[in-house]
Amino acid sequence: MIPAGLLERLYTVGSLANTAAGARFTLKNRLSDALLVAVRRLAIDGEPVALDRVRIVLEDGRVLTPAEVSAEHPLPFPLRSTVTIVTDGPELPCARHEIEMVFDARPFGELKLTVEDVLAGGGKPGLHIPRDETDDYSPEIVRQRRDFLERTSGVPLRHIIHHSFDPHLAKGNCENFVGVAQVPIGLAGPLQIHGEHAEGEFLIPLATSEGTLVASHNRGMKALNLCGGVKASIMADAMQRAPVFVLRDARSCRDFVEWVLAHSDEIRGEAEATSSVAKLQYIDPYTASKFAYLRFNFTTGDAAGQNMVGRATLAACNWILEHYSGITNFYLESNLATDKKASHINVLRTRGKRVTAEATIQRDVLMRYLRVAPETLAYHYGVANVGAFLSGANNNGAQSPNSITALFIATGQDVANVAESSAGILYSELTPAGDLYMSLTIPSLIVATHGGGTGLPTQRECLEILQCYGKGKVNRLAEIVAGVALAGEISLGAAISASDWVSAHEKHGRNR
Amino acid sequence: MIPAGLLERLYTVGSLANTAAGARFTLKNRLSDALLVAVRRLAIDGEPVALDRVRIVLEDGRVLTPAEVSAEHPLPFPLRSTVTIVTDGPELPCARHEIEMVFDARPFGELKLTVEDVLAGGGKPGLHIPRDETDDYSPEIVRQRRDFLERTSGVPLRHIIHHSFDPHLAKGNCENFVGVAQVPIGLAGPLQIHGEHAEGEFLIPLATSEGTLVASHNRGMKALNLCGGVKASIMADAMQRAPVFVLRDARSCRDFVEWVLAHSDEIRGEAEATSSVAKLQYIDPYTASKFAYLRFNFTTGDAAGQNMVGRATLAACNWILEHYSGITNFYLESNLATDKKASHINVLRTRGKRVTAEATIQRDVLMRYLRVAPETLAYHYGVANVGAFLSGANNNGAQSPNSITALFIATGQDVANVAESSAGILYSELTPAGDLYMSLTIPSLIVATHGGGTGLPTQRECLEILQCYGKGKVNRLAEIVAGVALAGEISLGAAISASDWVSAHEKHGRNR
Amino acid sequence: MIPAGLLERLYTVGSLANTAAGARFTLKNRLSDALLVAVRRLAIDGEPVALDRVRIVLEDGRVLTPAEVSAEHPLPFPLRSTVTIVTDGPELPCARHEIEMVFDARPFGELKLTVEDVLAGGGKPGLHIPRDETDDYSPEIVRQRRDFLERTSGVPLRHIIHHSFDPHLAKGNCENFVGVAQVPIGLAGPLQIHGEHAEGEFLIPLATSEGTLVASHNRGMKALNLCGGVKASIMADAMQRAPVFVLRDARSCRDFVEWVLAHSDEIRGEAEATSSVAKLQYIDPYTASKFAYLRFNFTTGDAAGQNMVGRATLAACNWILEHYSGITNFYLESNLATDKKASHINVLRTRGKRVTAEATIQRDVLMRYLRVAPETLAYHYGVANVGAFLSGANNNGAQSPNSITALFIATGQDVANVAESSAGILYSELTPAGDLYMSLTIPSLIVATHGGGTGLPTQRECLEILQCYGKGKVNRLAEIVAGVALAGEISLGAAISASDWVSAHEKHGRNR
Amino acid sequence: MIPAGLLERLYTVGSLANTAAGARFTLKNRLSDALLVAVRRLAIDGEPVALDRVRIVLEDGRVLTPAEVSAEHPLPFPLRSTVTIVTDGPELPCARHEIEMVFDARPFGELKLTVEDVLAGGGKPGLHIPRDETDDYSPEIVRQRRDFLERTSGVPLRHIIHHSFDPHLAKGNCENFVGVAQVPIGLAGPLQIHGEHAEGEFLIPLATSEGTLVASHNRGMKALNLCGGVKASIMADAMQRAPVFVLRDARSCRDFVEWVLAHSDEIRGEAEATSSVAKLQYIDPYTASKFAYLRFNFTTGDAAGQNMVGRATLAACNWILEHYSGITNFYLESNLATDKKASHINVLRTRGKRVTAEATIQRDVLMRYLRVAPETLAYHYGVANVGAFLSGANNNGAQSPNSITALFIATGQDVANVAESSAGILYSELTPAGDLYMSLTIPSLIVATHGGGTGLPTQRECLEILQCYGKGKVNRLAEIVAGVALAGEISLGAAISASDWVSAHEKHGRNR
Repeated sequence: MIPAGLLERLYTVGSLANTAAGARFTLKNRLSDALLVAVRRLAIDGEPVALDRVRIVLEDGRVLTPAEVSAEHPLPFPLRSTVTIVTDGPELPCARHEIEMVFDARPFGELKLTVEDVLAGGGKPGLHIPRDETDDYSPEIVRQRRDFLERTSGVPLRHIIHHSFDPHLAKGNCENFVGVAQVPIGLAGPLQIHGEHAEGEFLIPLATSEGTLVASHNRGMKALNLCGGVKASIMADAMQRAPVFVLRDARSCRDFVEWVLAHSDEIRGEAEATSSVAKLQYIDPYTASKFAYLRFNFTTGDAAGQNMVGRATLAACNWILEHYSGITNFYLESNLATDKKASHINVLRTRGKRVTAEATIQRDVLMRYLRVAPETLAYHYGVANVGAFLSGANNNGAQSPNSITALFIATGQDVANVAESSAGILYSELTPAGDLYMSLTIPSLIVATHGGGTGLPTQRECLEILQCYGKGKVNRLAEIVAGVALAGEISLGAAISASDWVSAHEKHGRNR
Repeated sequence: MIPAGLLERLYTVGSLANTAAGARFTLKNRLSDALLVAVRRLAIDGEPVALDRVRIVLEDGRVLTPAEVSAEHPLPFPLRSTVTIVTDGPELPCARHEIEMVFDARPFGELKLTVEDVLAGGGKPGLHIPRDETDDYSPEIVRQRRDFLERTSGVPLRHIIHHSFDPHLAKGNCENFVGVAQVPIGLAGPLQIHGEHAEGEFLIPLATSEGTLVASHNRGMKALNLCGGVKASIMADAMQRAPVFVLRDARSCRDFVEWVLAHSDEIRGEAEATSSVAKLQYIDPYTASKFAYLRFNFTTGDAAGQNMVGRATLAACNWILEHYSGITNFYLESNLATDKKASHINVLRTRGKRVTAEATIQRDVLMRYLRVAPETLAYHYGVANVGAFLSGANNNGAQSPNSITALFIATGQDVANVAESSAGILYSELTPAGDLYMSLTIPSLIVATHGGGTGLPTQRECLEILQCYGKGKVNRLAEIVAGVALAGEISLGAAISASDWVSAHEKHGRNR
Repeated sequence: MIPAGLLERLYTVGSLANTAAGARFTLKNRLSDALLVAVRRLAIDGEPVALDRVRIVLEDGRVLTPAEVSAEHPLPFPLRSTVTIVTDGPELPCARHEIEMVFDARPFGELKLTVEDVLAGGGKPGLHIPRDETDDYSPEIVRQRRDFLERTSGVPLRHIIHHSFDPHLAKGNCENFVGVAQVPIGLAGPLQIHGEHAEGEFLIPLATSEGTLVASHNRGMKALNLCGGVKASIMADAMQRAPVFVLRDARSCRDFVEWVLAHSDEIRGEAEATSSVAKLQYIDPYTASKFAYLRFNFTTGDAAGQNMVGRATLAACNWILEHYSGITNFYLESNLATDKKASHINVLRTRGKRVTAEATIQRDVLMRYLRVAPETLAYHYGVANVGAFLSGANNNGAQSPNSITALFIATGQDVANVAESSAGILYSELTPAGDLYMSLTIPSLIVATHGGGTGLPTQRECLEILQCYGKGKVNRLAEIVAGVALAGEISLGAAISASDWVSAHEKHGRNR
Repeated sequence: MIPAGLLERLYTVGSLANTAAGARFTLKNRLSDALLVAVRRLAIDGEPVALDRVRIVLEDGRVLTPAEVSAEHPLPFPLRSTVTIVTDGPELPCARHEIEMVFDARPFGELKLTVEDVLAGGGKPGLHIPRDETDDYSPEIVRQRRDFLERTSGVPLRHIIHHSFDPHLAKGNCENFVGVAQVPIGLAGPLQIHGEHAEGEFLIPLATSEGTLVASHNRGMKALNLCGGVKASIMADAMQRAPVFVLRDARSCRDFVEWVLAHSDEIRGEAEATSSVAKLQYIDPYTASKFAYLRFNFTTGDAAGQNMVGRATLAACNWILEHYSGITNFYLESNLATDKKASHINVLRTRGKRVTAEATIQRDVLMRYLRVAPETLAYHYGVANVGAFLSGANNNGAQSPNSITALFIATGQDVANVAESSAGILYSELTPAGDLYMSLTIPSLIVATHGGGTGLPTQRECLEILQCYGKGKVNRLAEIVAGVALAGEISLGAAISASDWVSAHEKHGRNR
């Protein structure tokens, strides 16, 4: 039931090379657990290779002949395992070669792979960043890379090499580690937050190099505190991966989508088997042409979860590919997720946390601390709304991406998620009492308190300062981010409205 | 000619307070240079204050009586200067007060200010972050803040306090400095770039905590190098500030816009007088309702330039406000700029640099190094394009915001600009020879090699590694960013197309 | 449980007027069926009116005193009924008046209404279009309006008065009927369609005044027929109304949404009780700030259904308003539906029918009949896709709105729905055989074969020509529209690609 | 300097056919005026044809041999003329053939065309709509088509055949004319308009089949009249065509754009030579990848102008193609125009007219006639704005596409332009006096009072009723459309806010 083109991509042939006495290549299983029950044929460039000249080398080093693989003695070929096929024969020239391989695998039956691979020559020597395959974070290899970098660039490294932790801690976060960027942290707050997960006064570490950012947020926080603080609420929670399935035609697509929805339980089972944390909430199907885009929505605990949902969705897709016939093509991502991108679907359907921060700023506080009448700010809101409509912005507010970025760098978030987290829906209204109600909704805030960069030393310290390190804290962090961002909105909104803005930059900013 | 409401915002009354023997408040000039030639009247809450009980305290400490200010002895009142008005009289209660002040100022004539201000009480004592008004970056005050932070949060600070530079260097970048975030830097490359400003092989420092990011880019760079490298070109350059003027009606708006365009030269003169670097390219007017949005487009040398163009545009607006009658309201920003926001106007009209990176990846290189046929990648491009259309994404590619963010953190860019820099237009085509042409256009890339965070120590080092520190280097940096981003696109595009993607994360990512 | 401000809007006081001996006003029930069990108080401008001077006039002409209304003798006050309250007293001046009324209504308990109404003077005499309240479509009143129009405009009416039907047929379609617009119909086709509801060859009546439109579609149809015709499939079906509920804060909003989803069955019951046709599929909730937007998705049989779903959703909302406390405001529409607007939500989530038309055009047919190579068209598709991304268009194709509009006018659709029906997702790919697969997905096609203008004489005839008049035919019509639109896309796409386009206009278009 | 691929498209070979004694094909010049000075070579399927066996047949019937064409006796080959090449030789089989032709043409030099064409067989007989090449609008051919339609469809035609004009009037508007759609016209108004082109009271003919539409607009007009009418202003005017040029790489693209802008005067000359009306205002260049999109902006007098600007832009492009080397491909349209599509570029940069209608509705009028307090409407505006932001709508108002469509059908506009004309920017504010200022800006309103369907009989009558028929009237019409649309916005906005909306449909709409 697996489309022909896909099989070649899911059973991947690779690493074609000459050996001392012939050729070898690897066969990797990316599809699902299987049993090899027979090797029927192997041909290179159309020339059959006698099977008694073929050896199958397993990952544990064991070597089998094709004859040793049979229905009685099936060879387990688990998902993501690799076997190496070695042939005895003449050396292959450095060129493209076609490899054909026919084998029986349970539960699929006979599979025929026809794959091209290229045998490369030596390649010209060039600059190569030193790497150590056994331990790429040891003092020695890090030193070698720094030497290489200094030598190659001519720049003496005095600062990036200065860090307070063992490079091994960066394993899983950063390949080819050479040092650190030191981003200044300024302290803002405290900010009074009344969330369901964050309650009380919080000191806020903001990592930034933009003058006035900390001061501007501080100003907003003071105003908020004087009005009783900010209320923050998590409205929704979802992390996505959106594979696309190509079918014969649109109608087949519609039938496929119906089938998928009818088999949600099985698909959920496959997906959730890959993780103790990821829970598949629902599959959101979208169709166009003969393409079925399935947007898988998960909750992912305290992790941001992009990798987790990638694995879970792949498992789900493999199940689908095995059980549904008529799929002609498949990709695990399709730009409907939309990771690291501002998109309308994220604004509408949530990505990460959808979180709203609200406050009513009293007239007196606005006038005294922020030097602006509520009416002036509300009028600016109306005018800037039309501006945002004209410009097609994903945010009708002033600066929530500033707040989010500074918190993301400080707390070890994936900062590229600023792309989608930058969306914001600001709303202002004058109350009958003449005060200003203001809310900020961030529809796609991607945050984590576990995994990714959250465990790095300074990042962890900042999370601890926010009482947000580790499991069960991610909603608290989301509420804090929204509260801080609302402080930034009020402060900059007031500054623009009061024409106070440029001069603030003159006082605090470097402005060279 | 200045609208009444605006005058109160541009001549700002503030800091109302009781003194030992009366009240005082400040008057700040945010409009333009003026001469005070007479003080005519002062009233508080409707009660006139006898002018012989009033004193004018200048910034340099001099004290004048109203009688000492006259047409013969005008008092210079430059833009952004402040005078303090002190009255002799009873203490004011803690409440809102109305201050009325009438004075003559050249070249405006008689000006009447009526402003409310609030006299606040003592305020409840609370947590206050220690600050030192004379030197807020001294070891002592930084230590005090750290003590305060440790005491208040209960978190012992072991890592963020660890940095390799004198905190004074962070002045202009970060208020309330307490330490640094240490973000791992991995080394990628070299990448062969053929730009008009960047030419040769570049080693690329990427600051990130996302596992696989460096490896993924490295893979793409190798493929690009094997094909002769990446071509990068700066297509356009513009930095904006977009004030909005409110007029009586739409028709007045249209006339106003015509007037502005007819007076571009004077306006340019005013704007450019504020900076030796900023050059006003053109004013892009947009209207809706009775609002005239003027999008000022500048070039800003090697700075990102947001502050620079803010000042320049304010000067231009002040000139407009003085010379055009009928404006009823004005704000310096209107969400048409659109700073720190993904927006359609930025995609269309450029913000920062518009830069395109291009390469033709040979079929053999794609198949051998990236394990995917050109047709498979091109097909995915088509499907993902439909996906991006459906999702309303600002980027039809795979991951350029990853590349941009890692370079932004490393090189001291304003990382919040990832919001607009995340837009990307990917294009692929199969060549007649069966290779894959791929280009990435980043329409709103905000970069600097001077100003902002570029002078911080690690950031400067990374810029130096890229041969991009200082003046005359910003276009080179933009070309490098685009080249690196194209490497990321090719690598991830290939991984998705080859179904290789999730397993890459398993190898490199922390994936916990 | 009904919020105070809403009560005044749902129990509407209106038509305040002086009578011979006092004042009167109407009270209309827009909320839900109720029983009046006591009238407790009436005051005008703060002055109580003695209840024995008050009369309640029912719609059937009966007159009651307040004393005649009691728990024992409750007065039925059904939804959408009106009572008139008449008071005995002095004439009211022409000004704004405040009316206060307190009464008991089951099941709500005591209700207090405080409403302002304005008593208008006579108004200046002016031009008034003649109307006849008893029969506004009689020959006499239509003649009067034509006379009035000729007299007032000075334009002799020779053409719009020319129609082939009794004006009474336009009742429910057009108020103040004066005549008709005669829009030329050209015949295209036949077009071979292979749908699930339309199968065979269809002649296509296109109502248009745009030269080349019919010829261009004809050309595309011929090419499609030569390749076996067009496949069309209905992918989804939904019609929406999207009320908004305002709550105290965001958190209340989230709780409200949860409550609504938990009570879907009751809500569905209320909604579906209003119509034998409308079926509530699901409620799609969206939140921002303290607003809960509920997008109700219905199927509506063969009607377009906007009115039907309006009534059904109002009934659902009334039930919600009665059963949920804490709602502070409510509007039946919120721009999330989005009727008569191009919107991203419609592209994503479908409005009306989502329909896809597909065909594979053989190379020879393309070259001979459309004078373009498949590669040239496919290349243009890629370039125009980037163009659509840049321009932010809701359609990456060439001209589907032309096809849709001409069919809409011919067949009596609500032509303003071209706004949302104009969205289109075109997709092209070269097949391995060198032919061109092309599909057009229209995600928000609003069509009807029953109700609205479909019963008007010429419109009905055109529907009959398409075998689409009446019940059970709407999916057939949607398939035909999509097929015709694909013909238009192929034809214009080819003309642009072959540079044949402008000359086509020269041949057929008026081009004056 | 003309790219190879383009030449084949601009000098088009076609109509390959067998003659009695050989083959023939046509050569059409779509590029620009030229002189043929030599025919050098002709080959079919690689086989050279002796030139003495070739004849050149001119449009006027003259026949030349290749030898008769020389530098001394050049053969004029004007733009859009066709020559037929006839060869003496064996019959060609029904298959694809390659034709190669080499000739010298001034001012281009030697041109080599290599083109494939297909020689088709007889084709299967089928249904064919009767046509008369000499006069396709005569009573006889119209009757034949009606007979054919009745016979084929089985539908007796009683209504569409009923019209008040000679079908010849539809020439240039509608091919294959068979009759008319009769769309009911209701009369609304009068509406007081204070424009710069429309001044006074206007009766408004609205062609629609949507019940309540006329009544709803009437209600809004009454409210507007009571407040002194509506102010309307034309803010901008531009009609576009947006060709795309493909270059070698992005950098070439940038250079090309610079060259184009530097040669604006010549390009303008070429463009404007094609029309006495079209004036090229400016060229707006956009780049992505190696594509240069040039958005030509014209004014087009009283015509909508799409065809006019198509011709003018083609002439400009031909000039560019002749004078700039390095262009590798070219298409006259690229989805940046964006005709018949809702797009962000149209909202920003205007398409057709940008027009704003404004009014201040007095509190008393709102309350008495529209039964809603200004605050309620203003609040709804705020909530619906957030709704429009969420939904990604191109219009934050209520129903301007209704107004526009009804006027478009009545007055003979290209109704498919509702797609882009549907965009609208509504703005509301409460005035200090408690009234409601409301404006509607339509950024891309495509209207004409000349050309297209405006000369059709009923359409012309409606234009005359509006005092808008003919030259010099288009701005008046645009102002009227905007005024009517504002009336619709106020009326429906009030109805939604007053919860009056569904019941209005019950009174007037058919609602079956």
